[in-house]
Amino acid sequence: MRLLSDFSVGQTFKAGPVDVTAEEIMSFARRYDPQPFHLDPETARRTFFRGLAASGWMTSALTMRLLLESGFDIPGGMIGREIEAMKWLQPVRPGDRLCAVSEVLGVEPSATNPKWGWVRFKTETINQKDEIVQSMIGVVMAPTRA
Amino acid sequence: MRLLSDFSVGQTFKAGPVDVTAEEIMSFARRYDPQPFHLDPETARRTFFRGLAASGWMTSALTMRLLLESGFDIPGGMIGREIEAMKWLQPVRPGDRLCAVSEVLGVEPSATNPKWGWVRFKTETINQKDEIVQSMIGVVMAPTRA
Repeated sequence: MRLLSDFSVGQTFKAGPVDVTAEEIMSFARRYDPQPFHLDPETARRTFFRGLAASGWMTSALTMRLLLESGFDIPGGMIGREIEAMKWLQPVRPGDRLCAVSEVLGVEPSATNPKWGWVRFKTETINQKDEIVQSMIGVVMAPTRA
Repeated sequence: MRLLSDFSVGQTFKAGPVDVTAEEIMSFARRYDPQPFHLDPETARRTFFRGLAASGWMTSALTMRLLLESGFDIPGGMIGREIEAMKWLQPVRPGDRLCAVSEVLGVEPSATNPKWGWVRFKTETINQKDEIVQSMIGVVMAPTRA
């Protein structure tokens, strides 16, 4: 398990792959993002995406799962404060295999609470063709030794 | 249906409520964010959140659903380019009822494609106690008259 002081700028964490299926794309979409390009392969052909594509929010959610598997290992869990930026760069398709590669960008003690600090990191979600499908910068809490 | 020129700074869109259940919090977490404070009410009591709380990514996904119901009504669908900022400000609990309130911040033609432009908006996700649980700024595509 890693305390705030165990993180340093430039550290990298990797996880994956996770497989993307048409079934998961469609069931996620029915509840959270019911749009034609996420719901049905046939209808999706006649949309901007020219075929079934995952909701960007499903890609984010799968990336969260990969983050947990990638070794951040923060005692008490990985608790997000904010996303500073997130871009969806390529469609995620049925059959894609996604990995996540993260790099620590900053480590900062809390200004108000000596028991906590913040780890700022960039995560790229990458498909089997080495295309970056999502890029984001996030900030999570980490406990100090105090 | 709204073309780019039908959007203007200051327009607001509202939707909700959507009900948050313990079952959905736990099933979302099992697939996407398997951490103790999202997976089981009993274990969650002994964590930072002192009780079951939804994954921030589930709040984002529910907010997407509310956005679709709130009247953006873009021909071809609501296609996100990026999230410029997103903060999770309060835990989301079983029994919460969430609404989304959005405001258009900017409307911009594409620099490279006369058929498309971008709508920039802020969305606050608000619970039944009028607390903002999530705040985000997003950018979506909208077609022009061209």
